Amino acid sequence: MKQSLSSNRRIITLLTDFGLKDPYVATMKGVILSLNSEATIVDISHEVQSQHILQAAFILFHSYRYFPEGTIHVAVVDPGVGTSRQAILLAAPGAFFLAPDNGLLSYIIGSGDRKKAGRLKLDSAFQAFSLNKKAFWREEVSQTFHGRDIFAPAAAHLSLGVAPEDMGEKIDSLLALPILYPKKYSPHELTGEVIYIDVFGNLITNIPSEEISSNAIIRVAGREIHGLSPSYEGGEELLAIRGSFGLLEIACNRGSAADLLKIKPGEKLKIYKPE
Amino acid sequence: MKQSLSSNRRIITLLTDFGLKDPYVATMKGVILSLNSEATIVDISHEVQSQHILQAAFILFHSYRYFPEGTIHVAVVDPGVGTSRQAILLAAPGAFFLAPDNGLLSYIIGSGDRKKAGRLKLDSAFQAFSLNKKAFWREEVSQTFHGRDIFAPAAAHLSLGVAPEDMGEKIDSLLALPILYPKKYSPHELTGEVIYIDVFGNLITNIPSEEISSNAIIRVAGREIHGLSPSYEGGEELLAIRGSFGLLEIACNRGSAADLLKIKPGEKLKIYKPE
Amino acid sequence: MKQSLSSNRRIITLLTDFGLKDPYVATMKGVILSLNSEATIVDISHEVQSQHILQAAFILFHSYRYFPEGTIHVAVVDPGVGTSRQAILLAAPGAFFLAPDNGLLSYIIGSGDRKKAGRLKLDSAFQAFSLNKKAFWREEVSQTFHGRDIFAPAAAHLSLGVAPEDMGEKIDSLLALPILYPKKYSPHELTGEVIYIDVFGNLITNIPSEEISSNAIIRVAGREIHGLSPSYEGGEELLAIRGSFGLLEIACNRGSAADLLKIKPGEKLKIYKPE
Repeated sequence: MKQSLSSNRRIITLLTDFGLKDPYVATMKGVILSLNSEATIVDISHEVQSQHILQAAFILFHSYRYFPEGTIHVAVVDPGVGTSRQAILLAAPGAFFLAPDNGLLSYIIGSGDRKKAGRLKLDSAFQAFSLNKKAFWREEVSQTFHGRDIFAPAAAHLSLGVAPEDMGEKIDSLLALPILYPKKYSPHELTGEVIYIDVFGNLITNIPSEEISSNAIIRVAGREIHGLSPSYEGGEELLAIRGSFGLLEIACNRGSAADLLKIKPGEKLKIYKPE
Repeated sequence: MKQSLSSNRRIITLLTDFGLKDPYVATMKGVILSLNSEATIVDISHEVQSQHILQAAFILFHSYRYFPEGTIHVAVVDPGVGTSRQAILLAAPGAFFLAPDNGLLSYIIGSGDRKKAGRLKLDSAFQAFSLNKKAFWREEVSQTFHGRDIFAPAAAHLSLGVAPEDMGEKIDSLLALPILYPKKYSPHELTGEVIYIDVFGNLITNIPSEEISSNAIIRVAGREIHGLSPSYEGGEELLAIRGSFGLLEIACNRGSAADLLKIKPGEKLKIYKPE
Repeated sequence: MKQSLSSNRRIITLLTDFGLKDPYVATMKGVILSLNSEATIVDISHEVQSQHILQAAFILFHSYRYFPEGTIHVAVVDPGVGTSRQAILLAAPGAFFLAPDNGLLSYIIGSGDRKKAGRLKLDSAFQAFSLNKKAFWREEVSQTFHGRDIFAPAAAHLSLGVAPEDMGEKIDSLLALPILYPKKYSPHELTGEVIYIDVFGNLITNIPSEEISSNAIIRVAGREIHGLSPSYEGGEELLAIRGSFGLLEIACNRGSAADLLKIKPGEKLKIYKPE
């Protein structure tokens, strides 16, 4: 791995389920700035659904690529804090990730279909290290808040130029959660599902936009949508569109598709390509 | 217009209805920092009521003047994304604005009374440009998220010193939404309305504070308030005060006036100046 | 007090009950950046319960120590804005605080048990000044928003190196609110209470973790917990743990203890140390 110690490395992003009411996120920032007062800290989100690791994994995967090369991403959705789960640093092409080894990096480390959770051996493009060196922790480490006491200081040290391989023991595999990919039953039929619902009530599916032709027919929640819409305002009340995640979205013109259809993540949908 | 390329221009503010749960705001920040890692990004608000352009216009108007000269304000409340509405850059005295041409800059470009939406020819203090040059966009532009793909990179390029007039074709007018101003029926009677309710439940009206004498009588929601209060704690339960927006506010001592009166934006109020 | 004018002093934190919907926080940032465009501004929280001074005091006390020495903390939960309550600057060991003199600094200035609110004479480690010099205010000061018009500009001037003693008249005492500390009835019995509930529904008590032995018995809301848990996942459904505030917490494995027990801040709990 040859990753230059560019000045970009000083950008540190934070993704948690801590919310913004409590001082948790702020103390992480304080710890980082105490070690590297030049760090630029950017919030990805702190409103991940409580302890919803896979939701955080999805958000992280769809955020990190928009940041400069060398950005350090700290993701802490960590119900197992204080147990034997490891804190890890993943050096990936163009980015660093610090997270508990609980599946948060599932989308980052592999795109294959996985039916059940398990350890995934890392591709040669990745290097992972266990953050087990106390030199890079806060002096006092709580049982319940490794975001502040381990991940934040480790990220700051990394931002100051410590080499990833000096931060802990190398490990070969990370925990990967099952990720559902769409299933192709025939060249004309595809089944996917809603995997994320955004603030507008847009239903983001697991179906890559480029797999859908403009005249596809989409069946979801007992409704049928004919063809893709060029914009949210350019379609019927209920419409399908190539969304900004690169995934097919079901949306509602000036409304919430989630409210209209009363569906949740996990809802299946079928796509038919007219012959 | 002579606006120096001061280092202040590196301050970029963001105002959206994207909320903070989804990665939308974060990806805009990533795009900006990828182009200008020295930019200072400040959130104005991301909790504008979904697709409420006029609310965003109000917030923007009452925020921008507190920022340093040369600050770049990016405002994206954009239900029409992907339609023919233009993305624009407005160079105004002391500030730059990037926004869809959908009325978001209504308060910025003119203070006259407008009964209905329409195109407003720009005053000579302003210069507007269509952000139609692909060189200042992200390479790949989605149909649904121009905040990330057009406005963020354009703001970053502007912050790096690109001249406004080099960023797109000049345009002469912008869409302006109807804005309600108070009506003066006589030297002693004024009618206005509640146009914004803040987190404390304070009712912000469209009536400039300086038009109200300290002993005015205010009628709202069947209640009568006698005179202005010097502080939130210095009045009756229900009180009127010169608020921080420069507008008359109706407030509740240690409570929410909105809850107390059960009223919403649009509620009329009458002011009488005793002779 | 010898506090060097380190570059750390350019870190300014903000703690308010303003929320993030309205432009209040953003205008404070704009004012700060207008005076010191190099300031690094960090949000502690803006979701303090409306006008809940003691909650803000708790959050501030448990946040500031994680920031670099010399950090400037601006805390504005200020129901008395516009009344005779003073705006103050407190120079404390390692940090500066700007806040209304309404009890917001209660935890910072003293750790003794206080039954009722009153003025507390400052220890020699502290110096307090009234922010009554208009030179450090915005030119125009509203009646309702001193966060923007007094605290923000004063913090910016301080960050630029103005000496605390030059910012206003010295004062000897600050208002301190009653703070409840646990009561020890015998070497084996302690009574405390829940003082804060976090986003996960963890119940943070006023009992220092180090006063509790690992095999203590905790009685709360009619339930009994035997011993401390090493992690949130390492205990029964309802568990007690040494929390990240240095205080005993009652938590729920993969759930919310607040929801489970249906209790609020103020709930008493008893700790028994087995002989």
